[in-house]
Amino acid sequence: MELVNQSDLDALFDFLLCRTPQAWIEEALKHEEILLQNHCYLEQCAARNALQLMFRCPDKTDVLSKMSKLAREELRHFEKVHALLTKRGYAYKILKPSRYAGLLNAEIRKREPGQLTDSLIVGAYIEARSCERFASLAPHMDEEIAAFFSSLLKSEARHFKDYLTLAAKYAGEPIVARVAFFGEIERSAIESPDGLFRFHSGVPE
Amino acid sequence: MELVNQSDLDALFDFLLCRTPQAWIEEALKHEEILLQNHCYLEQCAARNALQLMFRCPDKTDVLSKMSKLAREELRHFEKVHALLTKRGYAYKILKPSRYAGLLNAEIRKREPGQLTDSLIVGAYIEARSCERFASLAPHMDEEIAAFFSSLLKSEARHFKDYLTLAAKYAGEPIVARVAFFGEIERSAIESPDGLFRFHSGVPE
Repeated sequence: MELVNQSDLDALFDFLLCRTPQAWIEEALKHEEILLQNHCYLEQCAARNALQLMFRCPDKTDVLSKMSKLAREELRHFEKVHALLTKRGYAYKILKPSRYAGLLNAEIRKREPGQLTDSLIVGAYIEARSCERFASLAPHMDEEIAAFFSSLLKSEARHFKDYLTLAAKYAGEPIVARVAFFGEIERSAIESPDGLFRFHSGVPE
Repeated sequence: MELVNQSDLDALFDFLLCRTPQAWIEEALKHEEILLQNHCYLEQCAARNALQLMFRCPDKTDVLSKMSKLAREELRHFEKVHALLTKRGYAYKILKPSRYAGLLNAEIRKREPGQLTDSLIVGAYIEARSCERFASLAPHMDEEIAAFFSSLLKSEARHFKDYLTLAAKYAGEPIVARVAFFGEIERSAIESPDGLFRFHSGVPE
């Protein structure tokens, strides 16, 4: 199996302002069914988000091209997670979402200029965190899930960079302050207490 | 190039209540840019529609599986049409939509039972008509577009059957009357005068 290389993972860990807390990992190991159901749903959401960006940017060829490929990959991942759910006897259910994406989306500017840049930066954080969680979980999971999560790392690590490259290209100004702004919101969502266990939830209460 | 076989095309022509009028084909040959721009947009819409059905049916494994694959194929087609637009020097634009999908969608029942069945039947008609238009146009287009449209025929012919199979499976009752009902609306949209030329428009006024 071709794994993501260490320098790609290092770039990812540098981008995120914190690693997943150990308490979340321990909680995840007790909730395999919820973890996989929510993961399955998030792949669908990632495809939908990419498609929505395409509808918003018919004039931006790079957005169309990268988001179309990304949506296809997320759908392929959806199919794989769904197959794994079925194999383990879990039903696929759409659960009440975590607070995570909502906290980030609430800070996206409501109009241009700024809306697209913020949406792309939020996309980068969600992809990066997903990837970091796969990397954090893999060593603790059984062989089948560990291999599956490891196989996802490679494309998810590319996705976060795609979002960030597009944000830098179309912002029309440096994005470093905006990246730092969303980075702090993301860190807080991951490090603060959270009553609902999900793939992107914070520290279990 | 592997083309769709004649029996698949015959099934498609049997399903639709009319063939594309000659006057529409003649109009299409005068509007290559609009035709390709609108085709590109419709591939995006087809992917979005499939994804929306997935969000509505988390408990229906066949819907999830067939619609996820369909969405991936439509996105791949989107990428190909977009590349062709670029190659020909046309900008991709989202144009004012034709009346076609709106006329069909307006008749979808607003709640279950019935809503999913109707949505799937409408999906079947839109896919079938797209396929029939590719078949009708291909002999009149230049070699590059003809080959491209012919290559799309095969998957589009499968998509219409996928939608129809799902409609029959999940309706819980015979769908023949509902298929006939939407077939008449579809025929009317294709055969009646239409002031706006689009991929799915009626007879040019």
